Amino acid sequence: MTRKDLLAQIFEKHSYLIVGLDTDPEKLPAPLKDKKDGVLQFNTAIINATKDFCVGYKINSAFYEAQGAAGWEVMAATAALIPPTHFRIADAKRGDIGNTSRQYARAFFETLQFDAITVAPYMGEDSIRPFLEYNGKWTILLGLTSNAGAKDFELQRLTPAGSAVSGSSNTTELLYQRVLMQASNWGTIDNLMFVIGATNPTEFATIRQLTPNHFYLVPGVGAQGGSLKDISEKAITAECGLLVNASRAVIYASPGDDFAEAAGAVARTYAKEMKEYLPPPPPQVS
Amino acid sequence: MTRKDLLAQIFEKHSYLIVGLDTDPEKLPAPLKDKKDGVLQFNTAIINATKDFCVGYKINSAFYEAQGAAGWEVMAATAALIPPTHFRIADAKRGDIGNTSRQYARAFFETLQFDAITVAPYMGEDSIRPFLEYNGKWTILLGLTSNAGAKDFELQRLTPAGSAVSGSSNTTELLYQRVLMQASNWGTIDNLMFVIGATNPTEFATIRQLTPNHFYLVPGVGAQGGSLKDISEKAITAECGLLVNASRAVIYASPGDDFAEAAGAVARTYAKEMKEYLPPPPPQVS
Repeated sequence: MTRKDLLAQIFEKHSYLIVGLDTDPEKLPAPLKDKKDGVLQFNTAIINATKDFCVGYKINSAFYEAQGAAGWEVMAATAALIPPTHFRIADAKRGDIGNTSRQYARAFFETLQFDAITVAPYMGEDSIRPFLEYNGKWTILLGLTSNAGAKDFELQRLTPAGSAVSGSSNTTELLYQRVLMQASNWGTIDNLMFVIGATNPTEFATIRQLTPNHFYLVPGVGAQGGSLKDISEKAITAECGLLVNASRAVIYASPGDDFAEAAGAVARTYAKEMKEYLPPPPPQVS
Repeated sequence: MTRKDLLAQIFEKHSYLIVGLDTDPEKLPAPLKDKKDGVLQFNTAIINATKDFCVGYKINSAFYEAQGAAGWEVMAATAALIPPTHFRIADAKRGDIGNTSRQYARAFFETLQFDAITVAPYMGEDSIRPFLEYNGKWTILLGLTSNAGAKDFELQRLTPAGSAVSGSSNTTELLYQRVLMQASNWGTIDNLMFVIGATNPTEFATIRQLTPNHFYLVPGVGAQGGSLKDISEKAITAECGLLVNASRAVIYASPGDDFAEAAGAVARTYAKEMKEYLPPPPPQVS
């Protein structure tokens, strides 16, 4: 999916919501619990109920892999269910040496036909390059994540690049900021996004200055406590630049027979709020 | 597998070789090419030919995922083929927020029954904790990797922990060193290892000082150019402390009918060289 197609969808629906399909077989609502194809039926119902209010779906590979090869089949079937108008994200956090990352890119971009994949930056450029080489596909690199562990490494301060001598604090940068700056040289705003967690809103202004035109995939709204208002006010751009993911808050909105209806209602509420924050359509989509 | 069982195997076989099953269907030898179960037949033959010379196998999940759900089935079947005496490593480089890492741990430790998994450190402690909570299982955390991209972040210098003011260079540390030191507080030498690439031998002495008793999984010997002699001389301990992986150099030793025999011969050669570097058995295994 091109940036232009993504923008068209956002401004047509007045939504930048992504629904996260982190479907746990143990958390299925009563009518689907213990059914052989329960997860797929659940995902089908969730997609049908939410597709008018979101611009894409994020499939968290871990929840499918936990079920082995059968889970991988359900992941493939779910990816194929997502309407082609919608942005399909594999939340897989992959990344390895070049010849291995090429295989991961093949798995998610060719075999499963996702539009995007989340990738971890630790191993550097050659671990990310194979994903960037696909036309019309997106690499979504971890920047600042929404979990407590972000403080362990992502928020640690680096000494200035290219300097052996320690600099003053205003020339140093945090690891996640270095990741954003370095990776901005590897990809473009047409094939590279960053994961920026909603639970760190104080960092959002700095992040937007560093990468003014990139899309961010923002997890952490809902179950993890991040505020849609906070992050939208701090980081929305003239071309939106945000894809906000909600997983548990949407898909587990109700544990009963009305689970799909309830999921649709939560997605609709998010979209309604997003409409308030969204600027007028930019020239290329109006 | 406990540390004691791993040591017993190493000192009985006089080998610390891990064979990497990065099996690419496109690189199968002529007799197996285009066969439906070619990869599984190949892996079976490689395991049979090498099992007397190695102490474990490392399955690179990317090469299986590239084939979709069918590939995931071959990965499961291959894991089940590995003799229970051998250490079974999933080279999967996973890592995500806690509730997701728990699903990955379940996928690889329960569903696929691996003894160990490689994990990426970027997201910090809570992304790694779920793997460490399994008794008798091992978390192998990326430290310093064997690829060129290691210089982008892993080898970047951090300012001293807990200090807002920049320190002198001898009190600063590189990111991968911080990862080793921090993670050493999260796991123990009985459930945590580090990935340390063989292509950075100059760093090995420092690394061994920082983590004197941990096992390292060392990729990069063979096709990637790392020297077994170099890393063994610099980092072997009284309890070995090394698991050296060779993938392409072993499994693609010959493209013809004799592929298994050739793989066995290369593994035997590695093991023979390892015998020279290995110290006498420590008290707990003699």
